[in-house]
Amino acid sequence: MLTLFYAPSTCALAAHIALEEVGARYSLRRLDFSKGEQQLPDYLAVNPKGRVPALVTERGTLTETPAILAFIAQSFPERRLAPIYDPFAFAELQAFNAYLCATLHVAHAHKLRGSRWVDDPAAMEAMKKKVPQSVGACFDLIEREMLRGPWVMGDTYSVADAYLFTVAQWIEGDGIDPARLPRVIDHRNRMMERPAVAKAVADEAAE
Amino acid sequence: MLTLFYAPSTCALAAHIALEEVGARYSLRRLDFSKGEQQLPDYLAVNPKGRVPALVTERGTLTETPAILAFIAQSFPERRLAPIYDPFAFAELQAFNAYLCATLHVAHAHKLRGSRWVDDPAAMEAMKKKVPQSVGACFDLIEREMLRGPWVMGDTYSVADAYLFTVAQWIEGDGIDPARLPRVIDHRNRMMERPAVAKAVADEAAE
Repeated sequence: MLTLFYAPSTCALAAHIALEEVGARYSLRRLDFSKGEQQLPDYLAVNPKGRVPALVTERGTLTETPAILAFIAQSFPERRLAPIYDPFAFAELQAFNAYLCATLHVAHAHKLRGSRWVDDPAAMEAMKKKVPQSVGACFDLIEREMLRGPWVMGDTYSVADAYLFTVAQWIEGDGIDPARLPRVIDHRNRMMERPAVAKAVADEAAE
Repeated sequence: MLTLFYAPSTCALAAHIALEEVGARYSLRRLDFSKGEQQLPDYLAVNPKGRVPALVTERGTLTETPAILAFIAQSFPERRLAPIYDPFAFAELQAFNAYLCATLHVAHAHKLRGSRWVDDPAAMEAMKKKVPQSVGACFDLIEREMLRGPWVMGDTYSVADAYLFTVAQWIEGDGIDPARLPRVIDHRNRMMERPAVAKAVADEAAE
């Protein structure tokens, strides 16, 4: 039995979708970031980094979205959510996920989590101001170079699609005009037609 | 035949070490960041992100250190540089690498690459000021919780060791007192005793 610690509107949605896609048995534990629950001792005992997602397994706790997505794909190989037996193709998928994690998500975090990198309030404002441009540049690269279509890696649906769908929730909120990203938006719309995606989204909205 | 595009003092050293550890046939291509070579059209044709490392293979180009490290480990399974057949253990290793990539390296990048996230020079200075604290907090967590010893994942050497060694080159330059990180520094010293590590370091210094 798996337990996913998550908070709404975060990247934890990607792991949530992947768990639905493979038909895993799991339970959800919601954290309220507005109450700072991710920094309470109970949760820090689960994940000392104080972030989500954290996936508690029988062998211990896993963190970091790219690692969790690969774990889910590899644990349910019959669902073929990653080309785990082909080192090159798997690395291409992992490179996509690493870009979302370390470049796109990081740029997005400069809107609300600026205190990670500066103490000065004026500098935090300066960071917020550049988010439409910095996150927008990431989505432009995805639109132009990285999203092969119809799915991220081409003909085969994978955990990378769950991850792209998750960060694509932020487009409008980050001040990016969706009209300039027709392929990303088409992908986002098609994702909602998948029962696993619709269920994960509904679960997070309902609690 | 593989080709690794790198620049000195960057995270590309991790992939370089891993290539040495497995005994891969590869050649090196050095980029001079002081001349902006990573943004020239020739290189953008290799890696549209304009960063290093990029590993050119017979099937195409791979980017992002965590993806490249997993690729090298998986391509030379007999060298056992990652527990690729154990989804949980592999995810633990990948979570470590993701933390270095998306948290530690990102904090470090606020010293010299602030223009990714702000335009205002005063905000860039504010970012630089917090680097000792933000990168220091990452190394404290590694020292206290993440580095199992003697190697990152415990008794078995892995690509995560190459990656930790690489980012540990930045400790003094980021204004962190190494005396507070005895386990990380001991790891860094022991790494230099490995012929593959010493050769990669010497190659990058020599060119």
